Amino acid sequence: MGWMRDESGLDKTAANHVALTPLSHLRRAAGLFADRDALVQGDRRYTYRQYHDRVSRLASALSSAGIGSGDVVATIIPNVIAQAEAHFGVPACGAVLNTINTRLDVSTIAYILDHGEAKLIMVDTQFLEVAEAAIAAMEGPAPRIIEVEDSASGYPASGRHTEYEAFIAAASPDFDWILPTDEWESISLNYTSGTTGRPKGVVCHHRGAYLMTIGTAVEWQLGEEIRYIAIVPLFHCNGWNHTWMLPIFGGTWVACRDISAKAIFDAIADEGVNRFGGAPIVLNLLVNARDEDRRAFDHTVRVLTAGAPPAPAILEGMSKMGFVVMQAYGLTETYGHVTECMWKPEWDDLPMDEKAAIMARQGIGFPILEDVKVVDSANNQITMDGVAQGEIVMRGNTVMKGYLKNPEATAEAFAGGYFHSGDIAVQHPDGYVQIADRAKDIIISGGENISSVEVEGVLMAHPAVSLCAVVAKPDDKWGEVPCAFVELKDGTSADEAELIAFVRERLAGFKTPKKVVFQELPKTSTGKIQKFELRGLAKAL
Amino acid sequence: MGWMRDESGLDKTAANHVALTPLSHLRRAAGLFADRDALVQGDRRYTYRQYHDRVSRLASALSSAGIGSGDVVATIIPNVIAQAEAHFGVPACGAVLNTINTRLDVSTIAYILDHGEAKLIMVDTQFLEVAEAAIAAMEGPAPRIIEVEDSASGYPASGRHTEYEAFIAAASPDFDWILPTDEWESISLNYTSGTTGRPKGVVCHHRGAYLMTIGTAVEWQLGEEIRYIAIVPLFHCNGWNHTWMLPIFGGTWVACRDISAKAIFDAIADEGVNRFGGAPIVLNLLVNARDEDRRAFDHTVRVLTAGAPPAPAILEGMSKMGFVVMQAYGLTETYGHVTECMWKPEWDDLPMDEKAAIMARQGIGFPILEDVKVVDSANNQITMDGVAQGEIVMRGNTVMKGYLKNPEATAEAFAGGYFHSGDIAVQHPDGYVQIADRAKDIIISGGENISSVEVEGVLMAHPAVSLCAVVAKPDDKWGEVPCAFVELKDGTSADEAELIAFVRERLAGFKTPKKVVFQELPKTSTGKIQKFELRGLAKAL
Repeated sequence: MGWMRDESGLDKTAANHVALTPLSHLRRAAGLFADRDALVQGDRRYTYRQYHDRVSRLASALSSAGIGSGDVVATIIPNVIAQAEAHFGVPACGAVLNTINTRLDVSTIAYILDHGEAKLIMVDTQFLEVAEAAIAAMEGPAPRIIEVEDSASGYPASGRHTEYEAFIAAASPDFDWILPTDEWESISLNYTSGTTGRPKGVVCHHRGAYLMTIGTAVEWQLGEEIRYIAIVPLFHCNGWNHTWMLPIFGGTWVACRDISAKAIFDAIADEGVNRFGGAPIVLNLLVNARDEDRRAFDHTVRVLTAGAPPAPAILEGMSKMGFVVMQAYGLTETYGHVTECMWKPEWDDLPMDEKAAIMARQGIGFPILEDVKVVDSANNQITMDGVAQGEIVMRGNTVMKGYLKNPEATAEAFAGGYFHSGDIAVQHPDGYVQIADRAKDIIISGGENISSVEVEGVLMAHPAVSLCAVVAKPDDKWGEVPCAFVELKDGTSADEAELIAFVRERLAGFKTPKKVVFQELPKTSTGKIQKFELRGLAKAL
Repeated sequence: MGWMRDESGLDKTAANHVALTPLSHLRRAAGLFADRDALVQGDRRYTYRQYHDRVSRLASALSSAGIGSGDVVATIIPNVIAQAEAHFGVPACGAVLNTINTRLDVSTIAYILDHGEAKLIMVDTQFLEVAEAAIAAMEGPAPRIIEVEDSASGYPASGRHTEYEAFIAAASPDFDWILPTDEWESISLNYTSGTTGRPKGVVCHHRGAYLMTIGTAVEWQLGEEIRYIAIVPLFHCNGWNHTWMLPIFGGTWVACRDISAKAIFDAIADEGVNRFGGAPIVLNLLVNARDEDRRAFDHTVRVLTAGAPPAPAILEGMSKMGFVVMQAYGLTETYGHVTECMWKPEWDDLPMDEKAAIMARQGIGFPILEDVKVVDSANNQITMDGVAQGEIVMRGNTVMKGYLKNPEATAEAFAGGYFHSGDIAVQHPDGYVQIADRAKDIIISGGENISSVEVEGVLMAHPAVSLCAVVAKPDDKWGEVPCAFVELKDGTSADEAELIAFVRERLAGFKTPKKVVFQELPKTSTGKIQKFELRGLAKAL
């Protein structure tokens, strides 16, 4: 039992504990896949935005019809759109979904409605007469009928009941979903089709349904052989939890004592490694590897990079070498990566430099994460315009319990029910987050904020630059000015004036480094450049 | 809030609730991927069986060394095998894993050891002197050192401490892992590498680590566009929960009012459907479709089949048409599928009929399921020889809460801490489950058990047979004898004598049907043949 001697301040809070429910999936998809086909039925098709909207209306309509928490809503509907929507809309109003087999006889349906105590039933027109007969045969109170017509299939509405489309059209799409506070709450009631005796009502909970969906999602790719090289140190967020995950796939864990381009290329060529994670510095190693360290490979190698914002030029270099790179973002406090720059098919045809610029974004929330957003100092969502800056905050089940023996720091980190990352970012109109800087790495020059990440991204595009870092240098006139530290690639050359001119062509004058220093950059074991050391050097220049 | 009016008997029990922990993944992999490469480090490599064995020894050794629940075990190890093993072995003895950055200085390590109160520390020889100096600088009690040597990398053991391999070699591989009873228990302690001030100790729990691994596993395939047709009725286990899952991927849900070969082929060709689930009867429809209903398609379509044991001949037919079929098994009580016949690469080169015979197995437990096994009437695991029969039982988070307003039935179903399926099966030596029959469908002839599924499998291989069912017919001499009901394919013919001879060539005499009836079979809406009706017919013959 993993209870430590002192677990004060390590309790469940809104920031680190969310009841598991499959409803989370649709909430996430409504933003993330807003314009993608979600539901198709003949000529009818709805996007995820519409799916979410219609489900919210259904929940709202049910609520207005007096359906409350724990009430049962039954359906007798074939696999048409209303049945899918009921799967989210019914639990979203706090109710329990009781889908009834469309082939059952009047007496059995009457038994189920009595036993389950359904307060409302959604019935496809094709099965309306059976449902009406069943309700007439009930002993207990009759549920209200909402009729689901399907004219295209030859089942126009009877006119005897409120029709589904009218029912939801009259409701608000702004209904606040009623999510479970305890994942043990019931989500569905399914009667077994016993061939003898009365059917039994199987009650399922939100937790199980959530785990079922995630488990199935994993299975959808099972069979692929996964061979992983452990580049991310396991002392850094437990190697992003990958070591704990590999057994799901029966994947192979390949050790990595020392991180070098040769070791990685050898593992890819000799061990068939097809997955790894690594900080951008690792990608940099590979892109700038010496010819004698490189190895040819003909399989796809997928790379997750995180730990610092990678420069677009490095991402472009990796793509050219045949790696499939996805950027992720997270912190030790979030078990590692909790956002990812998920690729969209519509970006496939962009020019390589535009692709690389997109790949440099930290992206959108991971399926397991409940929410990630960028907020201003008053904890309000910033404008998603790619310009306004704020702090990245998140909540969900993969947020730490808290800081050991430090309830004050824990409470501060979880202020307002979100974990505060300390990272400054913009959000693009599609919701993708892009880090501008660590709060402490922002350079303030003449009252203007300068993102060191932005300046570094430009410098990294220079053909001679292998690695760089930009920090604040104290300045009597401007307060601070950007100062660049640069490592050049072997066999290339560039001087200070050339690099300054290169940046000036591409950025506003005040963002251009006033000083460029050529030296090896101090790095942590996880490849993060130690900017606090460079700030010390810049101060002394 | 989904609390129903009456939730008596719907509490958490050992059968339906398991604390989430990534340790479950390795326990599963030890059986499932026993001989697959799990760990590789230069010339050293261990299979999953060995990985599990070594982890159990580590947990056992730690326990014998006085490490108890909630104690902290630290490591200063690069990404070599011992570090991976610590990720499972330390929590498996109930302790909390504190991986320390190998680059840290003496003073910081001393601070971490004091603050985290580590009782034992595993140290790679390369970092031994730093660790020793840190321990000397501690204020609190010194942790015991276990040294991890790496001679192959030039770091032979110092001789000053117990070496890791000797430590685990002396321990038992039969140690019972100490799993969390509450998933909020702590699994790891990770110090943030703050650039100013002392590092903070981030405490993570089993729940978060588990969800992180599953979430990442899902992500590993993200980007694939998933277009799903809803053939499984949503009133049957909520369509196996697929509707709730699709938003994870932004997948497309295509409606299906009536199930016909034409509708399915059209959805594949016109809507690009690439996934669906369906009972074997659906596969049967596709294999036997009329030419004018078929459509060409050039993408991969993955099919999950469940609901009844499919005949090998049908699985073979699907493969020939280019579908990738995986069989799964489950019940309404388990949210749908909880086992799957996961394909192993070593089966790739088998002849088609042997492949189909393997595909007809129900397979192994789903990642989300904690355990599935086949037991005798005393609840003991049967011999895994493909012959001994018992009942399939399972436990895990995707087992129902219970039966509504039926605590007695719930208690009976959960007897012994497992959900009892009522399905009779064998287990093959590799652990794959194969259903022999529903308990009530077994035919007992002259004291011998006959699996109706086995006889049906043989009949289905006859070129003229489209569908069949075998049930018991009362017999004065034998008690019961097999009686077959058969649907023939359009345009083919076969008579009773021919089919009986066909079976007799392939099975023992007592398993051969004594009577064959040609007629359309009665089916439920989910494609299950209604054997209770056929038993009535057989009785009257």
